[in-house]
Amino acid sequence: MKQVHAGIIGLGRAGQMHLKNLLTIPEIKIEQVAEVFIDNISEQLNDLGVTNQTKDYHELLSNPNIDTVFIFTSTNTHEEIVTAAAQAGKNIFCEKPLSMNTEEEASLNVLRAVKKAGVKLQIGFNRRMDPQFRNIFENVRAGKIGAPQVVKITSRDPDLLPHDLIKRIGGLLFDFTMHDFDMARYMMNSNITEVYAKGGTLIDPTLKEINDIDTLVLVLQFENGAYGLIDNSRRAVYGYDQRVEVFGSAGMLKAENVSDSTVELYNDQRTELRKPLPMFQERYRPAYIAEMKKFAQSLLNGEPLVAQGEDVIMAQRAAVAAQKSIETGLPQKVDTTLSL
Amino acid sequence: MKQVHAGIIGLGRAGQMHLKNLLTIPEIKIEQVAEVFIDNISEQLNDLGVTNQTKDYHELLSNPNIDTVFIFTSTNTHEEIVTAAAQAGKNIFCEKPLSMNTEEEASLNVLRAVKKAGVKLQIGFNRRMDPQFRNIFENVRAGKIGAPQVVKITSRDPDLLPHDLIKRIGGLLFDFTMHDFDMARYMMNSNITEVYAKGGTLIDPTLKEINDIDTLVLVLQFENGAYGLIDNSRRAVYGYDQRVEVFGSAGMLKAENVSDSTVELYNDQRTELRKPLPMFQERYRPAYIAEMKKFAQSLLNGEPLVAQGEDVIMAQRAAVAAQKSIETGLPQKVDTTLSL
Amino acid sequence: MKQVHAGIIGLGRAGQMHLKNLLTIPEIKIEQVAEVFIDNISEQLNDLGVTNQTKDYHELLSNPNIDTVFIFTSTNTHEEIVTAAAQAGKNIFCEKPLSMNTEEEASLNVLRAVKKAGVKLQIGFNRRMDPQFRNIFENVRAGKIGAPQVVKITSRDPDLLPHDLIKRIGGLLFDFTMHDFDMARYMMNSNITEVYAKGGTLIDPTLKEINDIDTLVLVLQFENGAYGLIDNSRRAVYGYDQRVEVFGSAGMLKAENVSDSTVELYNDQRTELRKPLPMFQERYRPAYIAEMKKFAQSLLNGEPLVAQGEDVIMAQRAAVAAQKSIETGLPQKVDTTLSL
Amino acid sequence: MKQVHAGIIGLGRAGQMHLKNLLTIPEIKIEQVAEVFIDNISEQLNDLGVTNQTKDYHELLSNPNIDTVFIFTSTNTHEEIVTAAAQAGKNIFCEKPLSMNTEEEASLNVLRAVKKAGVKLQIGFNRRMDPQFRNIFENVRAGKIGAPQVVKITSRDPDLLPHDLIKRIGGLLFDFTMHDFDMARYMMNSNITEVYAKGGTLIDPTLKEINDIDTLVLVLQFENGAYGLIDNSRRAVYGYDQRVEVFGSAGMLKAENVSDSTVELYNDQRTELRKPLPMFQERYRPAYIAEMKKFAQSLLNGEPLVAQGEDVIMAQRAAVAAQKSIETGLPQKVDTTLSL
Repeated sequence: MKQVHAGIIGLGRAGQMHLKNLLTIPEIKIEQVAEVFIDNISEQLNDLGVTNQTKDYHELLSNPNIDTVFIFTSTNTHEEIVTAAAQAGKNIFCEKPLSMNTEEEASLNVLRAVKKAGVKLQIGFNRRMDPQFRNIFENVRAGKIGAPQVVKITSRDPDLLPHDLIKRIGGLLFDFTMHDFDMARYMMNSNITEVYAKGGTLIDPTLKEINDIDTLVLVLQFENGAYGLIDNSRRAVYGYDQRVEVFGSAGMLKAENVSDSTVELYNDQRTELRKPLPMFQERYRPAYIAEMKKFAQSLLNGEPLVAQGEDVIMAQRAAVAAQKSIETGLPQKVDTTLSL
Repeated sequence: MKQVHAGIIGLGRAGQMHLKNLLTIPEIKIEQVAEVFIDNISEQLNDLGVTNQTKDYHELLSNPNIDTVFIFTSTNTHEEIVTAAAQAGKNIFCEKPLSMNTEEEASLNVLRAVKKAGVKLQIGFNRRMDPQFRNIFENVRAGKIGAPQVVKITSRDPDLLPHDLIKRIGGLLFDFTMHDFDMARYMMNSNITEVYAKGGTLIDPTLKEINDIDTLVLVLQFENGAYGLIDNSRRAVYGYDQRVEVFGSAGMLKAENVSDSTVELYNDQRTELRKPLPMFQERYRPAYIAEMKKFAQSLLNGEPLVAQGEDVIMAQRAAVAAQKSIETGLPQKVDTTLSL
Repeated sequence: MKQVHAGIIGLGRAGQMHLKNLLTIPEIKIEQVAEVFIDNISEQLNDLGVTNQTKDYHELLSNPNIDTVFIFTSTNTHEEIVTAAAQAGKNIFCEKPLSMNTEEEASLNVLRAVKKAGVKLQIGFNRRMDPQFRNIFENVRAGKIGAPQVVKITSRDPDLLPHDLIKRIGGLLFDFTMHDFDMARYMMNSNITEVYAKGGTLIDPTLKEINDIDTLVLVLQFENGAYGLIDNSRRAVYGYDQRVEVFGSAGMLKAENVSDSTVELYNDQRTELRKPLPMFQERYRPAYIAEMKKFAQSLLNGEPLVAQGEDVIMAQRAAVAAQKSIETGLPQKVDTTLSL
Repeated sequence: MKQVHAGIIGLGRAGQMHLKNLLTIPEIKIEQVAEVFIDNISEQLNDLGVTNQTKDYHELLSNPNIDTVFIFTSTNTHEEIVTAAAQAGKNIFCEKPLSMNTEEEASLNVLRAVKKAGVKLQIGFNRRMDPQFRNIFENVRAGKIGAPQVVKITSRDPDLLPHDLIKRIGGLLFDFTMHDFDMARYMMNSNITEVYAKGGTLIDPTLKEINDIDTLVLVLQFENGAYGLIDNSRRAVYGYDQRVEVFGSAGMLKAENVSDSTVELYNDQRTELRKPLPMFQERYRPAYIAEMKKFAQSLLNGEPLVAQGEDVIMAQRAAVAAQKSIETGLPQKVDTTLSL
């Protein structure tokens, strides 16, 4: 079997989750891992059979056995590490966004480095590979609902994040809503040209201190004339609420939440169903595995990448526009032209 | 049994539906009906046992046996007939809105006439009594989802209306969305203070000729800090799509569409469920009956009215603001003060 | 409009429910009602506009304005009253069964009287007109699931009945399961040829004193080779549990329970749905109205009756066989030949 | 990490599926595999990193690095191989049943060999670990539905099996229904004391030639007084139909089928859902992995086994009784005493 020879950079909470998922994909062979705090998890990694470990990602990038790197470090390091990986000639899988900087020049510079190096870069827009949303996507593409007219996305996190984590990974718009901007554009197969956003702190007023919000509603205008509606919250007490609906001239497609069993309990009070899956780790496990498997297949067989550099730029632009819309109270145009 | 002694004005398509529903409510006795084109339906009314018929609503308003009138004529006649009914000292049930005129002074004048006459006026915001939405309303009021943060309404008609009908009853915003503005405000128990609307003709471009649209998305801001999202379409090929969701600090309530049976058909292609109910007549039949029963109980026992004059003014203001928002591309404030 | 001129005999709890339903059917005009304890409810009937009242059903049967009688008295009176009504030349709607006597000769004698009089008799197998089950029935007939192979019926009452009521209306098999035997035969369009039953008192052991049971499971063999499974209970704490499933060579049809709203409540504990409708009055209200409307249409326009005399005989035979099966522990054959 | 050192015997279709699942369980290390037709799949195994291969299971049983064997060969070899594995001192995971022989002495002899060797034996009643059914089981045990009164199992295969396969693995009762007997007993936590079965060939009459059936309905009596209903079919055109319902004094638990997405498609014809998962491989994948993980944990940490030798004997006895019931047309008692 042809295999991708992979290095993993970043084994924090997210990285460890991704590592376990990667270990179930036969097309990917983990050659080495790099993590600053490697000592804390070294033994645990040995148990998983991952014994080639380093603190220094530069060492991993110099490893000639490695052709591909998976980058799971904090957002504030993406710019530096992706650029270095490209320069080392490695194919790259990286979580969105590419940069903390809301001026997109920084992200474009990263993409230019990737382009110059001639390597492949896949962005971790995992939801594109969620079985629910993928099913909608394929049905929309197959014309099952005719011309799409409205896309609606409900995306609610189960709980507030610590302020210092937000500082490292970005606030609601740049960490969380960015996935929804990408999903909306992906479903519609059309760029976002205008954003109107309204948001505030209905849950945790202290978020204002770090210039963040916890509740957000948005109207999108697409290039093809269609509209979008998104609503976000940082705390849905019933779990991780992830739903998508696409309405078109010939019908509607709608994905409800996913729970861990279909069991119904009927008693003298009510009918009880299981709550939606509680966290992204469970809900998007199949999506995480699928996006990485697809990435491997792209590298090995030339299949298309799930999400590319321009996709993250477009999502970032929508987030920037939304930020300005909240600040000004006015809808904001989004530029759809892009050249590296 | 104490009974309301009722006259019905207007027996077009809607009026005939309401008449049949009224005939199932024992608290309401139909004393007389008035309809300009009474000859066309006279025999049919006789079959239903409704034999006291007139062409002239003034005659009905002079009938001393009648204490209450139900007005089911076209919107463009509401102003005149409601005012006359109030002056005749009759309690009034009238469909929204009170006036075709987007300047609300006309509607306020109608309400002033009602106030001066000391009669009761209930507005036909039937959806407030839909069993689905009523269940949500009661659970929200009971605190089951904590503080409401976002209300979402999906409201899609099964098909386009003829242009000349639109001219008589108002376009999408004033005929259709007005129900959603009222529902949003009802669920939130808070006034709408700002509206942002984006709409167009994705289905029938000739609607532009009569200054109407067929597709609409809206963001609402409420006085209590919460947000609202509404999306409308004139044509959902799968039926009459009427859904409401309220999200709050302690949970979410969500009403899916209603179909005529729960039967599931499993075959080698798919699992098939029944479509949503096709039209407002079927979907809102329980609501129509309930709102009129409640009106009768209000008249007979002093129970509160389901929806009053100020409710229709508030919904009209939101519709006017939405109209301006579409025209200007900017969000619009909505005044929440009201004095007659 | 052509109308059925009806008399109603029996206005106990069931009769009063039926009366209210009948009042909503324009094709049926109530000419007179008869009830032994008429004094208790006379005023209430006046309020409903039902003023022609008598204690004596013979008086009603002599009323020349009446062409049709609806019999809602206790089972133990059916034999006498149906026979008298037939002899008086009235068309008859009667609840099942026709006789308390498990020897079917008594029921056959009633049917012979009906036949001799040349009147129409419809049996109150209301579930045949339940929108859920009717939808299944029509899809089965239309061949949507190919050749039916197994029918499964779950039928559970919300709570135990008083012993003295059981004595008047029959025990589980003759009052309750009889509906399921009819439903099974109706769905399969084939006679039951063998019954195996297993039952006991898992809820109320004192039922043994009146030779009744509260829990029952059954296997049926049909003439066409197909099988049936039925399970009954007298107490489902979550409501009135009424489900039917038909499995065939090309698919499956399945009706779940019906509740009063589709609203879902999501909280930090669970997802909550509404319980199934609590009682036969609510669940089968559409079915009760539909079966009587169909009966009227049969009388007025010659449409087929919903359920006839032979249907009740066949259901009674299955009940008798089930009784013997429980007593002997052995499966029992059911005769499918019938001649009056 | 402590690990189970495993050998796998049998890599036919089922064995290959199990192998892939086993490779995702870190607690289990595959030391060697044995398969008579190893040449056909040797390269494929190498790709999976499974390089220690043999044609001869005796060689594997002599491997001192192996402490545990997983037996995935045809039923007709279980007797021999399980006995040999026990004598070799290996812990054993084996699919049900232990013997083709309907005289249970053969199976008991296998269990005696296991007992004498002092090794652990887990039976592959995988459905016990299905997330749906496990959820029901745990809720029943937790008393959520009070005293269980009726268990209902629907179990339908997607399609007929080849006759020669049936000869090797047993017919409907011994290969398929045996899972349902175990599930019924597991849910009820009570032994089956009586079985009534009715079955035939409604799909493929040629099954009679090999003394098998394709359609089956059953009534069970449990030691605790409760009842059971099972229905089986060899061909459900809509997929692999696997449902369980337990009804009790305080409520009901019900597991519907599982599909690969929750997406709903609404069009002008119907609402479409995804079909149930098509085959046992997909539907029970989580169950297969969970039962083996549990087995490893039992070996490593002393946790209880998921299903043991006596469980398979009890299921076999129910199958034997059902066979006799079909042949005689009479219910059959089942002995619940067992001593090795």
